[in-house]
Amino acid sequence: MLAPPLRQQSLGAGRVSQPPCGRRTRTRSVTMLLHRAVIPHLRQACRLKSAPSRLYIRACSTDDSLQPQCPSLAFSGDNSSTGGWKVMGTLLGLGAVLAYHDHRCRATQESPHVYTREEVRSHSSPETRIWVTLGCEVFDVTEFVDLHPGGPSKLMLAAGGPLEPFWALYAVHNQPHVREMLAQYKIGELSPEDKVTSTLKTSDPYIDDPVRHPALKVNSQRPFNAEPPPELLTENYITPNPIFFTRNHLPVPNLDPETYRLHVVGPPGGQSLCLSLDDLYKFPKHEITVTLQCAGNRRSEMTQFKEVRGLEWNIGAISTARWAGARLCDVLAKAGHQLCETEAHVCFEGLDSDPTGTAYGASIPLARAMDPEAEVLLAYEMNGQPLPRDHGFPVRVVVPGVVGARHVKWLGKVSVEPEESYSHWQRRDYKGFSPSVDWDTVDFDSAPSIQELPVQSAITEPKDGETVQSGEVTIKGYAWSGGGRAVVRVDVSLDGGLTWHVAELDGEEQRPRKAWAWRLWQLQAPVPAGRKELNIVCKAIDDSYNVQPDTVAPIWNLRGVLSNAWHRVHVHVAP
Amino acid sequence: MLAPPLRQQSLGAGRVSQPPCGRRTRTRSVTMLLHRAVIPHLRQACRLKSAPSRLYIRACSTDDSLQPQCPSLAFSGDNSSTGGWKVMGTLLGLGAVLAYHDHRCRATQESPHVYTREEVRSHSSPETRIWVTLGCEVFDVTEFVDLHPGGPSKLMLAAGGPLEPFWALYAVHNQPHVREMLAQYKIGELSPEDKVTSTLKTSDPYIDDPVRHPALKVNSQRPFNAEPPPELLTENYITPNPIFFTRNHLPVPNLDPETYRLHVVGPPGGQSLCLSLDDLYKFPKHEITVTLQCAGNRRSEMTQFKEVRGLEWNIGAISTARWAGARLCDVLAKAGHQLCETEAHVCFEGLDSDPTGTAYGASIPLARAMDPEAEVLLAYEMNGQPLPRDHGFPVRVVVPGVVGARHVKWLGKVSVEPEESYSHWQRRDYKGFSPSVDWDTVDFDSAPSIQELPVQSAITEPKDGETVQSGEVTIKGYAWSGGGRAVVRVDVSLDGGLTWHVAELDGEEQRPRKAWAWRLWQLQAPVPAGRKELNIVCKAIDDSYNVQPDTVAPIWNLRGVLSNAWHRVHVHVAP
Repeated sequence: MLAPPLRQQSLGAGRVSQPPCGRRTRTRSVTMLLHRAVIPHLRQACRLKSAPSRLYIRACSTDDSLQPQCPSLAFSGDNSSTGGWKVMGTLLGLGAVLAYHDHRCRATQESPHVYTREEVRSHSSPETRIWVTLGCEVFDVTEFVDLHPGGPSKLMLAAGGPLEPFWALYAVHNQPHVREMLAQYKIGELSPEDKVTSTLKTSDPYIDDPVRHPALKVNSQRPFNAEPPPELLTENYITPNPIFFTRNHLPVPNLDPETYRLHVVGPPGGQSLCLSLDDLYKFPKHEITVTLQCAGNRRSEMTQFKEVRGLEWNIGAISTARWAGARLCDVLAKAGHQLCETEAHVCFEGLDSDPTGTAYGASIPLARAMDPEAEVLLAYEMNGQPLPRDHGFPVRVVVPGVVGARHVKWLGKVSVEPEESYSHWQRRDYKGFSPSVDWDTVDFDSAPSIQELPVQSAITEPKDGETVQSGEVTIKGYAWSGGGRAVVRVDVSLDGGLTWHVAELDGEEQRPRKAWAWRLWQLQAPVPAGRKELNIVCKAIDDSYNVQPDTVAPIWNLRGVLSNAWHRVHVHVAP
Repeated sequence: MLAPPLRQQSLGAGRVSQPPCGRRTRTRSVTMLLHRAVIPHLRQACRLKSAPSRLYIRACSTDDSLQPQCPSLAFSGDNSSTGGWKVMGTLLGLGAVLAYHDHRCRATQESPHVYTREEVRSHSSPETRIWVTLGCEVFDVTEFVDLHPGGPSKLMLAAGGPLEPFWALYAVHNQPHVREMLAQYKIGELSPEDKVTSTLKTSDPYIDDPVRHPALKVNSQRPFNAEPPPELLTENYITPNPIFFTRNHLPVPNLDPETYRLHVVGPPGGQSLCLSLDDLYKFPKHEITVTLQCAGNRRSEMTQFKEVRGLEWNIGAISTARWAGARLCDVLAKAGHQLCETEAHVCFEGLDSDPTGTAYGASIPLARAMDPEAEVLLAYEMNGQPLPRDHGFPVRVVVPGVVGARHVKWLGKVSVEPEESYSHWQRRDYKGFSPSVDWDTVDFDSAPSIQELPVQSAITEPKDGETVQSGEVTIKGYAWSGGGRAVVRVDVSLDGGLTWHVAELDGEEQRPRKAWAWRLWQLQAPVPAGRKELNIVCKAIDDSYNVQPDTVAPIWNLRGVLSNAWHRVHVHVAP
């Protein structure tokens, strides 16, 4: 029963040992080759060592709205980790970028002003003007800061230093029009000796990310975010691992299951646990089918109403798997934790981290964590396999009925705290706001972090714009609700919501109060004679009789989360 | 800690002993004098003895749409139940007021104009002038209405009738300067016959129903169903007992607390309990603030779209009280019940019953009943008083977060069954359906019984059709959600939902996962210059980020339950 999963299957090259559990410095506990080889240089280059990490994390998250499309910059020099690089380099198409840099450097050889790295560093505020470098070139971006699409604060993180570490994280920058825009601000070049140090020994922090399934619709390469296409999404009740939607916030760490340790902080005066995978397997194995959904699922529909910041998810940021692992309540109890009367939260830290060493983090209320009926898992299996790297190998949290953001992947640390996680993603993201709130007025402390999600459904067949046959039309989709609330009905309309049909629910009947997984549904309906087009709409009802709102505008919010208005598909009827 | 409430206070005459617990025949186990004395006559008169009970119950339920206004069939001869009336007067704190009246009556003995109660009743609008009575005196307060410190609408609730019930609710009135102010408006006295309370000699099954507060808006006299008017609904966070909305399905039984017994059926092979009130007081006393809402709250808005069967509730079939009693889980545990793996339900039977002896009944899942965190109560106190008769004296169920229909009043029996209650109200009512389902196609077995309710909110001020001042408008209302989900935000629009303001939440902060009570809210918003009218809309969001649907048509259902679309109020702006 406790047999470990087939761990070897998912191991890649370039993995290194994890240091002993319990060392507190995050950068040290992170095992990525990437970090060993690259981060020290990056730090040196960025002078971010002393910058507030909070600020930096914010940059990482909200910049996902920029939707990187192109390969990032790469810089030669670091030979210590060449193993998998050539392949990845080819994959990422870095050649062209390198060529571009050479070209720029040669093109500006006429009589450039020459600045030292030290001089650049001294220009890091509006008062001193704001300079940045890219390769050997120096730019004064003071006038551009307020125009930066990702917001001034993001660009200010690079003030007085190189852009590369940021462009490497958010590859959207690496496009011709961005480089042209930047060129306008060029004021000179780095002095020859500084060119050497700045020949970044960086390598792409995403170089070690796993290879993905080509069917995935990619919304962002770095961090990697992708969803299965609608036509595959509801083909199977259980989503196959390779096309399960992926929502990463940072590069994927490459962890060695032999040396992996999960650090569970004990209660005051108690003892902490340092669990190997084998230790984790010794807890009773608990297996449940759970649907995960990103808070941003269906964001693209919100964008159609009004611009938001966030990845352009279609209807596929939702998938279902059979998860197995130890129950969090068993592990917490083993560490001596008990349910307490006062408010408390279980904080999770991932082993994925940004260049400052700050890990992804999130928390859930202790009451949920300690409730055996809530079935929160420290999962090590996904559909009978070890977790794929993109889904948290070797261990992730699975919090049934709760937004994906709390299902922390590559889990490194669990602790019980009197307050929610201080992670950016807990406190400065993944919250809902009124349509009246904009980026000038938003007060993140005023809204609760998203935990349970509202009732949701979408049509996966037919697709918007498709032509269907007259006679009879088959409509398919999914429906799900948060908090263990079962979907009790799906209403489907062919006339934009004037009249309704009741769809047939497929998939597994869910347990009362523990309806963690979606229902698939379908409807065969006659196409009314003479109709040239159909406005197909679906809406689901859960067992608290909550319903989806009619339209998207009144639930619009600046981050584009919680998009659960009726799903609408417009199709033509073949004559 | 276990001190029993002051039971004697609420006892009326005409009570009879309850037979020993455990007698199965319902009519026999029912202890109401009513039943002993009245039912045989009723049966004889109605020839209902041999009618199928299911049919009759259905009639009781769905006929509630008919809103009886007049006294029902009456049968003379029964004098035995006149006693409880005086006590109610004392309860409402009328003593001081009555003393004052004596004094006034003596003082105005010269040659007063004399009016009948009927004449007074006909003066209830500015057009006919506004009269009220206090004791034997009649006042024309037409000129005072706009000066009323509590607002004109509050005083208008008493127009054409007595002030006492309102003064009893709001004791601020009972001061010399208020009485002096009122004396200025005296126009005469009540005719001698009207001074004596009309002694009804009827013996209809409802003859023994308690006296109700006149502020209640009555949707049905028999069974009694009434709601507080919007202007009183959110005056207090805790709804005063006399105006707490009342939803009865049958006549109110008159039970003797001395002989009252609660029958708790034990598990197979175990022992049943037969609990007196004193036995119940010995369980730990648990006290919580809980909002109750009828499934039919706001049904009148559904009716406006398309006819439904049901009482025409406005927005007031919702109220909040502080309830105290024994936890159901403690009582069930005492009887030897445990949480089991298989599905099970706790069935409740009331001591109210129809002429066939069939009692009101309902059930909740055993998992909720046994969960200490769900805080299901066998309540014997409401706002620090013994339960009023209309609210289940001496014991009712309180199921926080769940539809009112499961909070069985006048509780007689509790049992654990493998299936839901077979009661009509569990299986053939209180369920939601698609708008496409009508009375010809409805299949009650296809829908789950309503338990947790969806997120809800409504505007209590201003009222629809009112004229508001230009400059700034104050909007007030309530918001609540089922299942212990807290209201996290209320959005208010003045332009029908195009733009939104965030309201300020008042009332008690709710505990996580146990937000059993409503939040009151208000918004002061500037009236846009030049606007002649406002389309005010509110919508609430709960901590699962569920929202209310935009419109009522897509959630319309044949019974008119679950009416939780945005609440809309149209007002004029004074020039």
